[in-house]
Amino acid sequence: MKWHVGAMALVALWSCGYSSSASAEDPAGLKDISGQWELSLVTFGEKTVRRLKIQTAGDRFSGQSGAMKVNGRIDGHEINFELLSPDGRVFGSFAGTLKEDGWGGDGKIAGGPASWTARRPTIRPPEARHQHDFQPQEYPRAFSYALPPVLRIFPGDTVRTKTIDALGLDEKLVRRGNEGNPLTGPFYVEGALAGDTLVVHFNRIRLNRGSAISGHKIYPVVVTSDYAARIKPIDSFDSRWVLDREHNTARLLNPTAALKDFVVPIHPTLGCVGVAPRDQQSWSSHQLGEFGGNLDYNQIREGTTLYLPVFHPGALLFFGDGHAVQGDGELAALETSLDIEFTVDLIADDPIESPRAENDEFLMTMGIAGSLTAAIQQATTELMKWLESDYHLNDAELAIVLGTGMRYDVAEIVDPQLHVVAKVRKSVLSQLHEGKH
Amino acid sequence: MKWHVGAMALVALWSCGYSSSASAEDPAGLKDISGQWELSLVTFGEKTVRRLKIQTAGDRFSGQSGAMKVNGRIDGHEINFELLSPDGRVFGSFAGTLKEDGWGGDGKIAGGPASWTARRPTIRPPEARHQHDFQPQEYPRAFSYALPPVLRIFPGDTVRTKTIDALGLDEKLVRRGNEGNPLTGPFYVEGALAGDTLVVHFNRIRLNRGSAISGHKIYPVVVTSDYAARIKPIDSFDSRWVLDREHNTARLLNPTAALKDFVVPIHPTLGCVGVAPRDQQSWSSHQLGEFGGNLDYNQIREGTTLYLPVFHPGALLFFGDGHAVQGDGELAALETSLDIEFTVDLIADDPIESPRAENDEFLMTMGIAGSLTAAIQQATTELMKWLESDYHLNDAELAIVLGTGMRYDVAEIVDPQLHVVAKVRKSVLSQLHEGKH
Amino acid sequence: MKWHVGAMALVALWSCGYSSSASAEDPAGLKDISGQWELSLVTFGEKTVRRLKIQTAGDRFSGQSGAMKVNGRIDGHEINFELLSPDGRVFGSFAGTLKEDGWGGDGKIAGGPASWTARRPTIRPPEARHQHDFQPQEYPRAFSYALPPVLRIFPGDTVRTKTIDALGLDEKLVRRGNEGNPLTGPFYVEGALAGDTLVVHFNRIRLNRGSAISGHKIYPVVVTSDYAARIKPIDSFDSRWVLDREHNTARLLNPTAALKDFVVPIHPTLGCVGVAPRDQQSWSSHQLGEFGGNLDYNQIREGTTLYLPVFHPGALLFFGDGHAVQGDGELAALETSLDIEFTVDLIADDPIESPRAENDEFLMTMGIAGSLTAAIQQATTELMKWLESDYHLNDAELAIVLGTGMRYDVAEIVDPQLHVVAKVRKSVLSQLHEGKH
Amino acid sequence: MKWHVGAMALVALWSCGYSSSASAEDPAGLKDISGQWELSLVTFGEKTVRRLKIQTAGDRFSGQSGAMKVNGRIDGHEINFELLSPDGRVFGSFAGTLKEDGWGGDGKIAGGPASWTARRPTIRPPEARHQHDFQPQEYPRAFSYALPPVLRIFPGDTVRTKTIDALGLDEKLVRRGNEGNPLTGPFYVEGALAGDTLVVHFNRIRLNRGSAISGHKIYPVVVTSDYAARIKPIDSFDSRWVLDREHNTARLLNPTAALKDFVVPIHPTLGCVGVAPRDQQSWSSHQLGEFGGNLDYNQIREGTTLYLPVFHPGALLFFGDGHAVQGDGELAALETSLDIEFTVDLIADDPIESPRAENDEFLMTMGIAGSLTAAIQQATTELMKWLESDYHLNDAELAIVLGTGMRYDVAEIVDPQLHVVAKVRKSVLSQLHEGKH
Repeated sequence: MKWHVGAMALVALWSCGYSSSASAEDPAGLKDISGQWELSLVTFGEKTVRRLKIQTAGDRFSGQSGAMKVNGRIDGHEINFELLSPDGRVFGSFAGTLKEDGWGGDGKIAGGPASWTARRPTIRPPEARHQHDFQPQEYPRAFSYALPPVLRIFPGDTVRTKTIDALGLDEKLVRRGNEGNPLTGPFYVEGALAGDTLVVHFNRIRLNRGSAISGHKIYPVVVTSDYAARIKPIDSFDSRWVLDREHNTARLLNPTAALKDFVVPIHPTLGCVGVAPRDQQSWSSHQLGEFGGNLDYNQIREGTTLYLPVFHPGALLFFGDGHAVQGDGELAALETSLDIEFTVDLIADDPIESPRAENDEFLMTMGIAGSLTAAIQQATTELMKWLESDYHLNDAELAIVLGTGMRYDVAEIVDPQLHVVAKVRKSVLSQLHEGKH
Repeated sequence: MKWHVGAMALVALWSCGYSSSASAEDPAGLKDISGQWELSLVTFGEKTVRRLKIQTAGDRFSGQSGAMKVNGRIDGHEINFELLSPDGRVFGSFAGTLKEDGWGGDGKIAGGPASWTARRPTIRPPEARHQHDFQPQEYPRAFSYALPPVLRIFPGDTVRTKTIDALGLDEKLVRRGNEGNPLTGPFYVEGALAGDTLVVHFNRIRLNRGSAISGHKIYPVVVTSDYAARIKPIDSFDSRWVLDREHNTARLLNPTAALKDFVVPIHPTLGCVGVAPRDQQSWSSHQLGEFGGNLDYNQIREGTTLYLPVFHPGALLFFGDGHAVQGDGELAALETSLDIEFTVDLIADDPIESPRAENDEFLMTMGIAGSLTAAIQQATTELMKWLESDYHLNDAELAIVLGTGMRYDVAEIVDPQLHVVAKVRKSVLSQLHEGKH
Repeated sequence: MKWHVGAMALVALWSCGYSSSASAEDPAGLKDISGQWELSLVTFGEKTVRRLKIQTAGDRFSGQSGAMKVNGRIDGHEINFELLSPDGRVFGSFAGTLKEDGWGGDGKIAGGPASWTARRPTIRPPEARHQHDFQPQEYPRAFSYALPPVLRIFPGDTVRTKTIDALGLDEKLVRRGNEGNPLTGPFYVEGALAGDTLVVHFNRIRLNRGSAISGHKIYPVVVTSDYAARIKPIDSFDSRWVLDREHNTARLLNPTAALKDFVVPIHPTLGCVGVAPRDQQSWSSHQLGEFGGNLDYNQIREGTTLYLPVFHPGALLFFGDGHAVQGDGELAALETSLDIEFTVDLIADDPIESPRAENDEFLMTMGIAGSLTAAIQQATTELMKWLESDYHLNDAELAIVLGTGMRYDVAEIVDPQLHVVAKVRKSVLSQLHEGKH
Repeated sequence: MKWHVGAMALVALWSCGYSSSASAEDPAGLKDISGQWELSLVTFGEKTVRRLKIQTAGDRFSGQSGAMKVNGRIDGHEINFELLSPDGRVFGSFAGTLKEDGWGGDGKIAGGPASWTARRPTIRPPEARHQHDFQPQEYPRAFSYALPPVLRIFPGDTVRTKTIDALGLDEKLVRRGNEGNPLTGPFYVEGALAGDTLVVHFNRIRLNRGSAISGHKIYPVVVTSDYAARIKPIDSFDSRWVLDREHNTARLLNPTAALKDFVVPIHPTLGCVGVAPRDQQSWSSHQLGEFGGNLDYNQIREGTTLYLPVFHPGALLFFGDGHAVQGDGELAALETSLDIEFTVDLIADDPIESPRAENDEFLMTMGIAGSLTAAIQQATTELMKWLESDYHLNDAELAIVLGTGMRYDVAEIVDPQLHVVAKVRKSVLSQLHEGKH
């Protein structure tokens, strides 16, 4: 995915791919089945949707859906086909008929019953807006496929919206949601399917109020257990902050004598950005993982582009947990509400295994795991894979380029999963020629 | 230890502390025992040396040695005393007589036999040089108390010397030592005793040749185990580098097509800096720990001041493993020989638990442990302790200052122990007032 | 929770606690509000249900709900009350009226709007059966509060049911669910509320077919990364097993020459036992955590009693992933379907932080975390807490008893979270007298 | 290494291997150089000794030393030869002459100067005793090549000796060494060279006094950091134990009320067994690693056979740190002095990467590392390698056998390195036939 040069110029061509088969007597392109489809399979109550591309040859047709091959026969309003694994084994067999808005029927997958439907991908209507102003009404506290979309947008669209703070307060300090990372969303991105990569570019991430609050306790897990036993929390400490949007600095509202001149530069970041997690799962907005989530990485700022894997139709994108300032490891964060503006795009059928990001300076890959070791291993691996696929470097070249040029950021070490980022400067990569391997 | 402001201006006054008791008839200050001593205790063949400060009152005397108290009686050439633990328990009792260069005798410690001697601290002779040029003859591959010192220096002294590369080659590519981090040293710092902190300031760390060599393999431990199973080493890869000392860049001698324009900026660093480890131990120059050692941190550069705990008389300081370039985690390093110049100093009786460093920008504490989690916990803890002792911040203030201002560097993840650095900008600290707790 | 002596003898008395306030003109006990209630609070679309106990004094009443205190006033069909935190701060204030089956109204919590209802706990109807035979129809693959209960049972009830294997096949090898730990349940336990502990005693866990299948690959994560790079999977290996229920042994259906006499003793265990996780979360049946889940511990056998924390009304209990044999760490398991019989009970208002278990020999606590270190720390801590609360031992006594008597089991190291069990023999505990601290 | 069947029956034949070349006029077998030698190489002050086997053909000879090949020419009292790496590259070239007790001279290795000597292996003199009673005089606290041997023994020899306790007290509670695991040894095993495996069979490990002492504090590292912050040490607790050698039980000398009936069964184990570590290293007797050391595994008991890698001539074997009782993880141990009797043997040129053990029931491999994850990975890997080399199982067979039959013991989690043991029953292995791969 050599996405990082002019990412936003990408035109999501694939979503128009089936137009060739539309005609006067088949305006929706249903009877001539060649071209692109979205195939839904339901087995034992669970639905899977995959992109499918068909070529017809007489009454026979063949196709591809991810790694699966399709072979079938169409006879007017009746259809039969098989899904074959890459090694030619029959994975499922299906029969069906033409319906009002597509095809559908029954079949068998892995010895069990299945039902199926196939529809043409949704096309952006000519009158659809590309810019959206969205005022959230509710703020769920889970990343979940089960939540109804709050707005449906197309690749290329831009949304202006806002997030309330991690405690549930909005820009006027009015409670709008429960404490614990209430989220704005989910946004449904038309055309996004499992196996795609969702691109989220942050055009603006800005403060919309003059106050924040932080913790003021040492997390026992970030110090040695001997030191943890010595921690003396100061319950009376006032950790409310004044945000000076003119000078872009923060200071404590009621500082102690030691901190009366303590001033911190502001860098607004979003702690939570994620999509609906894999399978029939809902994860709390405290969680993070391959779907993004409570990433708490202080480089998710205005100007950053984030890449997220897609697991469900529409991807279902969420935002929240704004920070005016966040240190490494998220040992402290200044919680506040934010105004944000983002543009989405889609890379079809090119999945990633964990979130990635880029800004003007760096490519970044995120390792999110239950231990720091696993997190750093995953981050390193994903950066190697990114360079491998974009520059075709061999293992020695990768070892040289990343061994001399990679840097690690410890994003956070206090959430349920730990998060380490591996990054490499784009100026290093601009020296590379594509390997030939 | 608020050492980081004008560290090098410190005058090691303590080493002259006993001069008051010297007199015409007792020129070496042996008979009037008031003042400073170095007390050596031998139990079951193991020697411990501690600083001891005596006040006399008639034939009685009392004193302090670290946390221990001393009570005794002197009668001409005969002496008796006890060492008492802080809670008043008798730790040892001793008898002895005046010898030619001090006192000595026998005693009992913890129920076992002991022998002891006490000598006045070594004073810098008036004619002693403050600047030393040292040409190493041998390059041991261990940090060890058992190696004979190559040069004895005093606090405040400056030494110009050189290190050969990790493979044993010098600036002319002549083999001078065995492969595997051969070391320059040990340097014996007069007056240094266990419980002190040794200060090493690097005035110069410079390349002295035009070539380096690096690894070109992906370390399996830095990637996921699934990815490790896919690694395909390129045995034929030529990872020799040309060092351009004029432009301060490195490039491969025989680059592949993909890397023909690949140029890396040079930052000479010392991979190995350490003292003799605790107790009767010798550790390989591949190892690292509380004694420093194979730290492999790419910020140990010209201009950096390093603080190391002292475990043996003279501290016994070693250097080696020069790198022209080293990435985060030490996934690759460009091994080369170096010219170095350093100045040592001493902070008496103020021990640290793991190495610390500072440069113009940052205070840095090093967490060195068997897991990344333990390393990051130790680094964070040591930085908290540093600020706690220098600024008297309470736990809430520490949480605020480090939570917003601390950064982590992943120094290396490929050696026998892992190494993470916690650091905070001096500009942040300059805003602090001393807490009152 | 000194539960482990005669656990099943417990009578769930609390569920009848409100009967005293029922009378002829108030048969449901709604008007005289003294006694027990279930209080539901809804804030921003999220519902929380807690047990509440009320004492009336004229038109005033007070009460307790977990750590919260209640103060209020009742005036015929109108009611007003406040919830107070333990330190006396007002957490919420509420008004309402008498409804058909309880009380309800609106209020404010933490500055945000809330609605509330209060109902009397459900009582077991006299005609309700204590024994249930349940034939599952569907097998979900998530532990989730959002799934409709398949059966409602009362504390003390016994259920006979079955689980299909991890691949979705039943006792006749018919596919009944999707591959990937399809589950039987959820069972709704009447009266269970967040903060309770659910007790599940396994009366029977038995094979119901003569075949199983296992993996035959070395997991890269259980070996060193160097060894992982050498793994050569044998794709053609046939890892189907024959289960001999007469001799209670398993052997490969088509063994290689090396394994032709390889026979393994059978110990049927349930890999998955869990309740609906905390908050609005659904977790895949591959996951494990404080809610139980895919525990994969080979001591969850017939005769074992499992304790699980409750997070939602009814607890919502699930089972699945039967193993005929499972080694330590779950490096391999013989997947099969099972007949099971279990009895549930409830310990009200006595929460635990992770699953616990006991059998005739041992008390066991489960540490489930993202790293082995965190897992072993949690398991040790929970066992200390168990003994602390049951025997009132001080820290030195705990150190002595567990230091000499604790054992660790490495339950599994291949799932998304790692699982270590700490256990201590009941014979050790039978020597203890209660401490007085 | 299929050593575990009748290990002690092995006859160390190799040590007599050169006798064929001895003759009347060359009684020491020096002139006819065919047969076995011990080759010492010294480079830059470091000595390496390797076994070397020579075949002569006229004035030419060839040989093998580990993986290295030897080619040379002998001309009366003059000799020249080269060492070649397996791929035929010249690693070193040497010249020399016949000396009184062997050959010797100079050469070059890797471009640097080297000196060399070659001697015939030491043969057991006919009069040498096979049984030794050894009364230690000193108790060092390091595993070190630099310590002088206390006794020289041959493979097959048996030694009866004793160890003092971890605090330095002997069987009469007399202080004989410093606190902190004072050791008995080192024993020099004639013929042992780097690359060999040393076999130590414990014939007897018995109590020799009626008292022990244990810790009574909870180690913060074995509990969660939240719990660590709550630990309240009981400084006044008396943790002295009475050892009842008749009933083989231990009880506290002055138990608290809660523990007045607390009795623990005794299983005497050796906490420390190790050889001199690799290279010019001395490691404290608190340390453990590939060389063994402070293993603290409660299965190192009478009847156990331990396998240790050899890094220095003579192996240099140490013992100490006896425990009357030790729980899993070494959260507590009852420290005491012991009488021990052991028999050594040698497996030439068959190195292992970490300690192994066996008893009547189990084969055991020890994973010793800085994190639990790395320890468990190493233990698993070593057990796989053991079965791979002894039974020639393929990866699927290994996955089946160990996946169903392996168990883990958490040996200790409180020392500088963590220690996990993987083990498999010999009854499982007795079912295996050798694979054909």
